[in-house]
Amino acid sequence: MKAAFYQEKGKFTLGDSPVHSPGKGEVRLSVQYCGVCGTDVHIFHGVMDKRVGPPQVIGHEASAIVAEVGEGVSDIKVGDEVAVRPLRFGADHPFDKGHKHVGKNLKFIGIDSAGAFQQNWVVPAYTLHKLPEGLSLKHGAFIEPLSVACHDVKIGRVKQGENTLVIGGGPIGTLIAYVLKDKGANVIISEVNEKRISMLRELGFTVVNPIEQDLKTAISDLTNEKMIDCAFEVSGSKPGVEAMTEVVNVRGRIVMVAIHGGGPREVDLFKFFWSEIELLGARLYEEEDYDEALHIAASGAVPFEKLITKVGGLGQIQEIFDEIDQHPAGMKYLIDINQ
Amino acid sequence: MKAAFYQEKGKFTLGDSPVHSPGKGEVRLSVQYCGVCGTDVHIFHGVMDKRVGPPQVIGHEASAIVAEVGEGVSDIKVGDEVAVRPLRFGADHPFDKGHKHVGKNLKFIGIDSAGAFQQNWVVPAYTLHKLPEGLSLKHGAFIEPLSVACHDVKIGRVKQGENTLVIGGGPIGTLIAYVLKDKGANVIISEVNEKRISMLRELGFTVVNPIEQDLKTAISDLTNEKMIDCAFEVSGSKPGVEAMTEVVNVRGRIVMVAIHGGGPREVDLFKFFWSEIELLGARLYEEEDYDEALHIAASGAVPFEKLITKVGGLGQIQEIFDEIDQHPAGMKYLIDINQ
Repeated sequence: MKAAFYQEKGKFTLGDSPVHSPGKGEVRLSVQYCGVCGTDVHIFHGVMDKRVGPPQVIGHEASAIVAEVGEGVSDIKVGDEVAVRPLRFGADHPFDKGHKHVGKNLKFIGIDSAGAFQQNWVVPAYTLHKLPEGLSLKHGAFIEPLSVACHDVKIGRVKQGENTLVIGGGPIGTLIAYVLKDKGANVIISEVNEKRISMLRELGFTVVNPIEQDLKTAISDLTNEKMIDCAFEVSGSKPGVEAMTEVVNVRGRIVMVAIHGGGPREVDLFKFFWSEIELLGARLYEEEDYDEALHIAASGAVPFEKLITKVGGLGQIQEIFDEIDQHPAGMKYLIDINQ
Repeated sequence: MKAAFYQEKGKFTLGDSPVHSPGKGEVRLSVQYCGVCGTDVHIFHGVMDKRVGPPQVIGHEASAIVAEVGEGVSDIKVGDEVAVRPLRFGADHPFDKGHKHVGKNLKFIGIDSAGAFQQNWVVPAYTLHKLPEGLSLKHGAFIEPLSVACHDVKIGRVKQGENTLVIGGGPIGTLIAYVLKDKGANVIISEVNEKRISMLRELGFTVVNPIEQDLKTAISDLTNEKMIDCAFEVSGSKPGVEAMTEVVNVRGRIVMVAIHGGGPREVDLFKFFWSEIELLGARLYEEEDYDEALHIAASGAVPFEKLITKVGGLGQIQEIFDEIDQHPAGMKYLIDINQ
């Protein structure tokens, strides 16, 4: 049984994934597919070593088959096909106000403890969501990032018929666009990478390249001057932050999806006052977001197959991460854990 | 009949306030008191000349007695004592989504057209709110800024028992603190000016001076680590913007009251993501905010008399504005229009 260990900046090694029996309330999974998240790439860049503590198995966008159930697990049985919500809730803290998914004592499975780039993975049973009939295990690996998108759109309180803008058309931005479409919103994507622009247009989205066109003017034209009711800042870039306050209308919402971790950013606070706009932080997901993601996935609303750039075996994980670094315009890379 | 004209940076002159009969839907007011707003001081500093177009009568925190009613005005009669909501709504624009008080075509009476530092003032009848029984005309001049505070607290969705922080204990910050107290919230004020700190403590508020104490630690102690559910950034300062993201808890709200007009500010966007916090812009007021302000004022919950630094006659307006410039620690200055 194999596991991929993140060793140090830029380096994975392969090793054993020993079979540990699940404890009380736990389940042992036979991991099937695991997507590569931007956070995994960030870890691969060596900037999260202090938190990750290498050597460590990372990966958290997993689909799996239940291999063994521990004591007290009643609603999950061997053979169930599942997606994993990789959050281990810690003790409540008054600061959290009951929002466990962003609580002070939250531990993220796949960053703070061993993740899914391995064949045997023991997780708490409460992290599991059964895949719906007809959703393949390969596509089941999209449930975690699709839940992020569902959470973001929920935080944005998007209603049918509203004008929405996704700033940054990478994997999460694209899934947000699909969730918005599912809600009946009008969707515009702002993206600068030509390969991604072509792909998004082929998928049927309206895309503006803010390097070629003035974004504000383009959006004014596309919306008959109404501008944007809800914008999603997914780019993590300085121009994205500049754009977000320029495009929203009165009481428009901006959902902060990107992780602006490199220090404070310059923000036009005057615009917040002037048009009573809102900036809404969004992180991870709650249980209900997984339920919604499974519902949307089951409906066929997201063409997962078209969003897969490549599927590589666990043995090729080093090459896959190297390729992602060299081709930042790719969409979703999946690791087939049993190849 | 007298009027004070803002002429140019640092200069008022006195002149005539001729009696114009009100047109259809309009009312002529005999202005009684008018408070000096931070915006008036801003105008006095010469930085809004392009918008104001001097010479111009400014002033918008007015109480008045109705002197004459125009055609079609049925719910207001001569002798009524009123406060004025100085907003002239323009044509609807799709960008506004029906929020007329911050609409694209809004004109602010007292900035974009003649204001209340004069004895005769003609305004649309729809701007008037009758003062409640027992509220003096002098205290009626507080209804406009108190409505700002009511609007800010409404935007912040503050509930009974929540921990709130007001960053900046000037006139608007202090009125916000009173509205928060009225809602049953726990109120802390952050203020750096020693005179204002003494005054606020005498009024019974818990005040932290962030120059003398670490604000985050002080708030943690005061709230038993729960921190702040809703913060109000009223200071307009860089340290205020730094503090606002440090003090709020998970899903905490920050209401942007201050006018950060000097260019973009550095904001910790990571914190928005990490704890799912919200930044909510607030500007001016809606009709219901005036109703609430009148209700609070009538209840006696705000000790207006203690908040008055000085009352000067219209003839002393130049001295009053000069004094405000020299004594920035003052609270509310009122102009007695008939002195």
